[in-house]
Amino acid sequence: MDKTAKADEVSKNIFYGYAEAVTKAIPSYIEDTGSGTELGKAVEYCLTAPGKRIRPALTLAFCDIFGVDCGLAMPYAVALEMIHTYSLVHDDMPCMDDDDLRRGRPTCHKVFGEANALLCGDALLNRAFEIVFEAAVRDGRCGAAAGRELARLAGTEGMLGGQALDIANENTEAGPDVLLETYRLKTSALLECAAAVAVELARENGRYFNSSEEEFENAAAATVSFTRNLGLAFQIKDDLLDITGDPGTLGKPVGSDERDSKRTYVAAVGAEKAARDMESYTEKAVEAAAVFGERGRILRWLAAELLDRKH
Amino acid sequence: MDKTAKADEVSKNIFYGYAEAVTKAIPSYIEDTGSGTELGKAVEYCLTAPGKRIRPALTLAFCDIFGVDCGLAMPYAVALEMIHTYSLVHDDMPCMDDDDLRRGRPTCHKVFGEANALLCGDALLNRAFEIVFEAAVRDGRCGAAAGRELARLAGTEGMLGGQALDIANENTEAGPDVLLETYRLKTSALLECAAAVAVELARENGRYFNSSEEEFENAAAATVSFTRNLGLAFQIKDDLLDITGDPGTLGKPVGSDERDSKRTYVAAVGAEKAARDMESYTEKAVEAAAVFGERGRILRWLAAELLDRKH
Repeated sequence: MDKTAKADEVSKNIFYGYAEAVTKAIPSYIEDTGSGTELGKAVEYCLTAPGKRIRPALTLAFCDIFGVDCGLAMPYAVALEMIHTYSLVHDDMPCMDDDDLRRGRPTCHKVFGEANALLCGDALLNRAFEIVFEAAVRDGRCGAAAGRELARLAGTEGMLGGQALDIANENTEAGPDVLLETYRLKTSALLECAAAVAVELARENGRYFNSSEEEFENAAAATVSFTRNLGLAFQIKDDLLDITGDPGTLGKPVGSDERDSKRTYVAAVGAEKAARDMESYTEKAVEAAAVFGERGRILRWLAAELLDRKH
Repeated sequence: MDKTAKADEVSKNIFYGYAEAVTKAIPSYIEDTGSGTELGKAVEYCLTAPGKRIRPALTLAFCDIFGVDCGLAMPYAVALEMIHTYSLVHDDMPCMDDDDLRRGRPTCHKVFGEANALLCGDALLNRAFEIVFEAAVRDGRCGAAAGRELARLAGTEGMLGGQALDIANENTEAGPDVLLETYRLKTSALLECAAAVAVELARENGRYFNSSEEEFENAAAATVSFTRNLGLAFQIKDDLLDITGDPGTLGKPVGSDERDSKRTYVAAVGAEKAARDMESYTEKAVEAAAVFGERGRILRWLAAELLDRKH
């Protein structure tokens, strides 16, 4: 195994280790979430489904890069996964994408009914912020700032804004720019969240190994560029996988999760240009990660991994 | 006008003043919430509907009692109103209560469609916590603690737990105890929230006029007793108004907001006993407020006002 392949193997194992740590931590964060009730069962069902945990694992990866203790960041990482999961539960509902399968299992509303699925999504979002407030009571201002970034990027300036644009784009001939903006909001925003949590926590814990103010802000800006470009590549890859008939499981459902009426970048510019753009966004992400030097190798591995995935 | 009537008039005007101040503050908190998009319009539509603003006004009333600056508390009060509003938007959806009217106007999903209504509720909940995180960055630990209480009481230990019980009780012969527990969660919890915000902020700002630790904790406990009993009386009154054909507008829709299948306390124990119990819960609330002496007069007025309301 050559040196690069060895480094990639290490990065991969660390990233999967983070993902596994998040999966193991999750049950302790939902112990009191209406256990025994249908709602409690729905919350558990959705959160314990086999997911890749990319967003929370990326949060811990960024914490490592910025010198923030991963244990300190765990509640924020779990909250981010809960926010991602709630968005999937609501997205799957009949009034949205009307999907029957998610992560290889029947969707929440198929198992627990629509009313409980609606409340389940609400409960996941609510519990995510409850966990962060609890952490912020312990961590002080930087915890509240991390929570503010989570809420901002999950909200109308981020993910929810993207979902709203998705609805608006339906059955339209939306151009590439509108679609890229939609992707930036609905997909990149929660990846940006992963970085933002680490950056905010770093302001009072570790602070990027006592770098200068300027170095710190440059590093923070690089996380935004990295995650935005990574999200665009990630979403275009999803679209390409959808048309090549190998639907995704990487935070995506087994079986198509897109309404046929949903307008995609691939439909707008063609598969060939879309594939070139996907590579170009991946390159930009990798370039942005250069500022972290050796510490950024896990980011470079992730960008390549998401580009090469087969599902 | 006798002395009591005069004091009640003052309390009433102060309470309505708080409600009006909240109504005037709301637009500044949703300026950037997807303005121009259908989602942004939906959020504005729901939040600017004529509501009585009982929960945020009660928050400010408790702040006054505990010596917390109302200006400091405003973001938390607005967040509480947003949480209440999101719960109404989702409750009204076809998979829940399937209501056409709310606060005298067509419900959100009737105007903007189900997909946007779903996202609108999500956006209101998300924005509520975003506002509180922003405030907590300013206010520090007590702000995060106020947020934690908001999330706890809006979650499965509170309002969402009550909504889940509501679904579970449907088409059952649920007994009085189960129904009262449901009411405590779905109605009392957000009133308790109003008090909890003031109590947590008071720990670092005003602290109940520098009372002793014991006095402070007694006062905090009294707020829980007051709001729990007030909520039970409030919800039973709603049920009674539903059967006397004078449906509510006090945070309730014009037109019935209950599915016919919804099990109520009035159905379980009869209107006569329900009316007696309602008065008894009101009395208990008033007794709990006694600990505040003269400062508690606005609470006594509110308890009487909610008992006597005609809609």
